[in-house]
Amino acid sequence: VRLALEEAGVEYVDVAREPEARGGGYPAIERVLKGGTPRPFAPPVLVAGDRAIAQTSLILQWLAPRHGLVQDGEAERTAAMQHQLTIADLVVEAHDTHHPIGAGKYYEEQKEAAALRAADFIEHRLPKFLGYFEAILTAGPSGWLIGDRLTYPDLSLFQTVCGLDHAFPRAMERLSKRIPRCRALVDRVAARPRIAGYLASPRRLDFNQQGIFRRYPELDLTP
Amino acid sequence: VRLALEEAGVEYVDVAREPEARGGGYPAIERVLKGGTPRPFAPPVLVAGDRAIAQTSLILQWLAPRHGLVQDGEAERTAAMQHQLTIADLVVEAHDTHHPIGAGKYYEEQKEAAALRAADFIEHRLPKFLGYFEAILTAGPSGWLIGDRLTYPDLSLFQTVCGLDHAFPRAMERLSKRIPRCRALVDRVAARPRIAGYLASPRRLDFNQQGIFRRYPELDLTP
Repeated sequence: VRLALEEAGVEYVDVAREPEARGGGYPAIERVLKGGTPRPFAPPVLVAGDRAIAQTSLILQWLAPRHGLVQDGEAERTAAMQHQLTIADLVVEAHDTHHPIGAGKYYEEQKEAAALRAADFIEHRLPKFLGYFEAILTAGPSGWLIGDRLTYPDLSLFQTVCGLDHAFPRAMERLSKRIPRCRALVDRVAARPRIAGYLASPRRLDFNQQGIFRRYPELDLTP
Repeated sequence: VRLALEEAGVEYVDVAREPEARGGGYPAIERVLKGGTPRPFAPPVLVAGDRAIAQTSLILQWLAPRHGLVQDGEAERTAAMQHQLTIADLVVEAHDTHHPIGAGKYYEEQKEAAALRAADFIEHRLPKFLGYFEAILTAGPSGWLIGDRLTYPDLSLFQTVCGLDHAFPRAMERLSKRIPRCRALVDRVAARPRIAGYLASPRRLDFNQQGIFRRYPELDLTP
């Protein structure tokens, strides 16, 4: 969601990172989670005017036509959301490599199952998902997922590949030569002026051990 | 998706259940998975005229305004998709109770992890999700998730609660008194004439051990 807002040049406040003294932090998150119609189940939530919209894919679908991140036309919009939801499935599976038993438990409580799930993910799911997107990029001539310019699922695929590079550097290195078009897309997104500015700014959150994409070397391919 | 088509009274063919001699079965699924723009990642796929749309939530979002399963108005449509995506998250977690390590492996290969994940699901996730929808239904006066009539996430919540009843009869029995409005919604959906006709027909697929919601008694609450 941050990448979409940055690429579109939209001003936004990431309330989770604002200090409590400036109305941010955990109290602000709690406030957002208690408001909205319907009330959100969980973050992230986009507050825009009197709307509060939850669910990452829906937030992106809502933002995109307002900010030039999807083409006009129903076929293009449907294609974009289809890709977005497939990427979201991949993201859930990437998360569950370190939390296969329960999101509310520590990684250390589920390390054995995590090792099994991560091995299955690296062997089967990661090549299947990224191979799928490689085929989509191969089928189209532009280097973007849809049509001839960037749409929001390109940003989501960028973020996901970056996260996977962080979490599974060895597995991704092995896979890289089979996904040259995904790699090229990542480079192209990173080079866009607003995205490049964002990535170099303190607004960009580093991947960390509280997020979706975490680096536990024991879950990666053995060297 | 079938419930939405049935409630709307739309004619459809479930190609997976058609005999190969009539152009159905696995070859038909393969054909659909190789066509479409973009090509789908996985079933289900809705083929409507020259469109092929994948991702359950997107199929429902696409069908709903065409068949009276969502109100007009952007706020209502956004609310409906937000609920749909939250229900989809619950469905993934319900599936992963029996496949926490890998969807391509047999249950028997991951029984130990499944027991742990199912216990966590029953203790934490199931009450959290269904408690959330109970609160949504409590906040509105109509007994439906949005506005004053049925929308497609009501059908999705119906199917999900039915599936959970099948998979975890003891856990759902224990939870039932805390979710009276979810229970009432299920009864109301089941009583709708077209849905009742469908549920009594051979078109309704029984829950089974190949689907998302499976009954493994050892994953349910102990008696």
